[in-house]
Amino acid sequence: MSEENKNLEYKRHTLAHLLAAAVLVDYPHAKLTLGPAIDHGFYYDIDFSAGDAPGDDDLKKIQKHMKKMLGQWKSFEHEEVSAEKAREVFAGNEFKLELIDEIESKGETITLYTAGKDTKAEFTDLCRGRHSENPAEEIAADAFKLDKIAGAYWRGDEKNPMLTRIYGLAFDTKDELDAYLQQLEEAKKRDHRKLGKELGLFSFSELVGPGLPLWSAKGTTFRREIDRFVTELRKEKGYELVTIPHIAKKALYETSGHWQKYSEDLFKVRAKEGDDHDEYVLKPMNCPCHTQIFDSEPRSYKELPQRYAETTMVYRAEQSGELSGLTRVLSITQDDAHVFCRESQLREEIEAICDIVDSFYSKFGFNLKLRLSFRDPENAEKYLGENSVWEETEGMLKAIAEDRRIEYFIGIGEAAFYAPKLDFMANDSIGRVHQVATIQLDRMLPDRFDLTCVNEQGEKERIVMIHAAIAGSLERFAAVLIEHLAGNFPLRFAPVQLAVIPVADAHNDYATDIYNQLKDAGFRVEIDTSNESMGKKIRAAKKNKLPYFIVIGDQEVENKTITLESRDTESNESLSLEEMIIKLQTEAA
Amino acid sequence: MSEENKNLEYKRHTLAHLLAAAVLVDYPHAKLTLGPAIDHGFYYDIDFSAGDAPGDDDLKKIQKHMKKMLGQWKSFEHEEVSAEKAREVFAGNEFKLELIDEIESKGETITLYTAGKDTKAEFTDLCRGRHSENPAEEIAADAFKLDKIAGAYWRGDEKNPMLTRIYGLAFDTKDELDAYLQQLEEAKKRDHRKLGKELGLFSFSELVGPGLPLWSAKGTTFRREIDRFVTELRKEKGYELVTIPHIAKKALYETSGHWQKYSEDLFKVRAKEGDDHDEYVLKPMNCPCHTQIFDSEPRSYKELPQRYAETTMVYRAEQSGELSGLTRVLSITQDDAHVFCRESQLREEIEAICDIVDSFYSKFGFNLKLRLSFRDPENAEKYLGENSVWEETEGMLKAIAEDRRIEYFIGIGEAAFYAPKLDFMANDSIGRVHQVATIQLDRMLPDRFDLTCVNEQGEKERIVMIHAAIAGSLERFAAVLIEHLAGNFPLRFAPVQLAVIPVADAHNDYATDIYNQLKDAGFRVEIDTSNESMGKKIRAAKKNKLPYFIVIGDQEVENKTITLESRDTESNESLSLEEMIIKLQTEAA
Repeated sequence: MSEENKNLEYKRHTLAHLLAAAVLVDYPHAKLTLGPAIDHGFYYDIDFSAGDAPGDDDLKKIQKHMKKMLGQWKSFEHEEVSAEKAREVFAGNEFKLELIDEIESKGETITLYTAGKDTKAEFTDLCRGRHSENPAEEIAADAFKLDKIAGAYWRGDEKNPMLTRIYGLAFDTKDELDAYLQQLEEAKKRDHRKLGKELGLFSFSELVGPGLPLWSAKGTTFRREIDRFVTELRKEKGYELVTIPHIAKKALYETSGHWQKYSEDLFKVRAKEGDDHDEYVLKPMNCPCHTQIFDSEPRSYKELPQRYAETTMVYRAEQSGELSGLTRVLSITQDDAHVFCRESQLREEIEAICDIVDSFYSKFGFNLKLRLSFRDPENAEKYLGENSVWEETEGMLKAIAEDRRIEYFIGIGEAAFYAPKLDFMANDSIGRVHQVATIQLDRMLPDRFDLTCVNEQGEKERIVMIHAAIAGSLERFAAVLIEHLAGNFPLRFAPVQLAVIPVADAHNDYATDIYNQLKDAGFRVEIDTSNESMGKKIRAAKKNKLPYFIVIGDQEVENKTITLESRDTESNESLSLEEMIIKLQTEAA
Repeated sequence: MSEENKNLEYKRHTLAHLLAAAVLVDYPHAKLTLGPAIDHGFYYDIDFSAGDAPGDDDLKKIQKHMKKMLGQWKSFEHEEVSAEKAREVFAGNEFKLELIDEIESKGETITLYTAGKDTKAEFTDLCRGRHSENPAEEIAADAFKLDKIAGAYWRGDEKNPMLTRIYGLAFDTKDELDAYLQQLEEAKKRDHRKLGKELGLFSFSELVGPGLPLWSAKGTTFRREIDRFVTELRKEKGYELVTIPHIAKKALYETSGHWQKYSEDLFKVRAKEGDDHDEYVLKPMNCPCHTQIFDSEPRSYKELPQRYAETTMVYRAEQSGELSGLTRVLSITQDDAHVFCRESQLREEIEAICDIVDSFYSKFGFNLKLRLSFRDPENAEKYLGENSVWEETEGMLKAIAEDRRIEYFIGIGEAAFYAPKLDFMANDSIGRVHQVATIQLDRMLPDRFDLTCVNEQGEKERIVMIHAAIAGSLERFAAVLIEHLAGNFPLRFAPVQLAVIPVADAHNDYATDIYNQLKDAGFRVEIDTSNESMGKKIRAAKKNKLPYFIVIGDQEVENKTITLESRDTESNESLSLEEMIIKLQTEAA
């Protein structure tokens, strides 16, 4: 972490203390528990069960106390104390006492941190440190804001008491805070759950269950176009589509190792107890089945690389409470692919995937950064395989990033335990960063499934695999893209591409003619012959985020021209139908 | 059943007796159990545990005895006997004694049937009758043949002793028997399991499990083209694609009624015991989820019909022993569709589906017959709904069949318990009949899920559903089509459409140029630049059932023409590349 980032983290941690101190002003009965710095701010978990608890309306008041006390926090001091002394200080607070017991049992030092010593705002907490040294000077009083109140179990365990979590936002400057607040506001407007419903893309059913989206015809069109785009890009690189079932015997996942490692996250499938079926697993990923297609016949080196792609649903048993919109679902559609190749072919194959990733994300205006997810060499024992192989492979990945002039950074310790990865991060239009495509090397599954080719010498040669999803999960990608574009999909991906809007009944015939010709030309087009006013019809087309609409009135009928009005620009050209079709086909290609 | 069919069934039943009589000649220790007529012939289950059992080599000898005895079977007489008398006759045969006990306990008459009375071939068996009256005269001795020996549990229950089942084939004439034997021979050559492997379309993996085919790139291409063809035909009729997950809460199937009716055939899905998830079901069909898409918003009559199509896998827990090739699988890909419409729209929608079925099956040269699957009015109480509704609906379906001049017959008692069906039967090229597409009306699910639209009067109106799969299951259709065409798929559906074969290395450059141009034009083309002889290359292309191949030699390089050689005809035209591309594109369209 950079020095700058560290300072901000210290500020946020300091503000968690300040929040706790401010809460005690009006809620002296509150029992403090834990309060860390987090992304964008901080929180503190507090037990108010001995009296009143604050509501959303009280946040302003608490924040006022914080700002007042901040001026007096010109220092942050600490003191090492015995467990006995610490227990005296926090007598009656069972949460802090539990923490003290733990620190003591681990034989670690117990420290108390005090801010604003010898002022009215003096506040002491059990803490490991890492604060601003002079909060009054370092922290801008207008660069933080209490955000919201939520419930949280003590230490995240639902068997424990429920506490009140107060969240705050904090940045170095007011401008940064304001920008973030604006981003939140904008994100709320673009929320894919809200827009997805408005645009009629998907729905959920109580009978089907949470985390299991049902995709309407419009949503399916969008998914299909995304998938076709990926498939086209892959076809140019020699990928072929294959098809596997969604269940397989447990033995497959025992061989792959998923059973041993992720058994709790796997959905198990049975007909009935005691029947003659093996126990099945609902697939959590596609690689094990794809290895079986590779291994269905002996492979000569001449047949390699084999590149299998398949867009198919996988299932992972997330807790119901964690399911949300399209970002956390049980049914995950992966645009998955696996390359089975020789070591000597690795670099070329990885570069081909980088090409696909570039073409795909640039189409949607995403700005990509690359994280080279390498192992932590200080914990080499945690990783499988030879040092020299790791070094060589990481060297190759770095060379690829440099030769391609991709903006990259190295994520130490982010590798899988069996190989390094390339993780692409996309910046969306409101400044958020999403991890998107991943390219993952794999020498473990080829070992576990004993995958080989016969080489030039007629010997069996161990092959290597590459896992590479481009959009990743279609559900998550849909969520990211809807919010990135606020639902304004490019022409090719829009479920409905344009609407024909006759001004009055007299224009219906000509409008229908235009509509039919556009439909025959392959466009997804609607015609609005309702009795609503033209203004209302246009507003409906705009609300549905249609890329284009065409208004047909007297002039259009007379001149046999069409004015194509765009969702995204002010341009409205008068064109012949033929010209318009060519223009739209070019844009959608 | 027609009079003619009955006579053949009587002959087959008679031959089962004759088989039993003939077995006793050389195996007097054999205990007879049951021997019915079946499609194409007959069998008898016999317990040989008290001595030697016949093997395949002994069938000829038994058949010889049968033919000899047949001449003496000029009569078939029967006698009603008491249980006591019957027990005397079958003393020591625990199987027959069990049957006698059963008939007695039901209070039914016990009858013994004797053929060839007072001859050396006299034979008596416990039986309900229905034999040829004068077997010697009626049954042609050259129109039956013992076929094979298999094992079978007494009464089909694996807890019972294993018996020996001897199968025979029997027809009215020798010609019919020969034709059937030839059909069997031809079917063996075309067996989709054998051809599927040779053509590299699919494979099975022990780790994945039986009944779970893995589709290679070639097999996936074939599936995709079949699916695209159905989707195109449906698009013309206003169908839209939707997408659902493969699991849903048990509650969905309780509402649909599948849980109560088919619970044993459903795959149940759980993360772990005692987790916070509902119990899920792996979908056995798609209709319940599609109702939830229909029901995701209120529907005006103006939006109807809603036509949802989706090609997706369903899973049914067949017993492992019943799984076979692609005809009985656990993972069934349905090209499924559901129409949600008003009663007044039923006929038009059904006719549209008939159009699709016609276009689809005629493409592959199938000859379709229609079975109108009606209820049995003598068991009206077994069916759900008003008599008048049944009569009206069945009348409509019959009118459709007659107006469209489809060859049809009525299947009394073949309706679903909630509505009649249209079942299409396809005659394949070697004379076998396969049940293929089905159109099924449904007023039950709309009731159970309370599906309505708001009609012109602003009132809720109950809608009706139509279920309609065209290819049915892609797995089963692939099996039928492979065997129907002996793997010779039409150009559009062939995984590889043509091969370019240079005669010698000197022709490789021009051949590669042709190959690239064909590829760019969208064809699935291969080039064979191996060092094999031209004859061997051509044989390989033919073995892989490629619709076309192009040989490139000196003359082609010089004249810049191409000779397109066809798999199916002797024609080999000389064309320019442009002409050839147009010819192929027209054929593949």
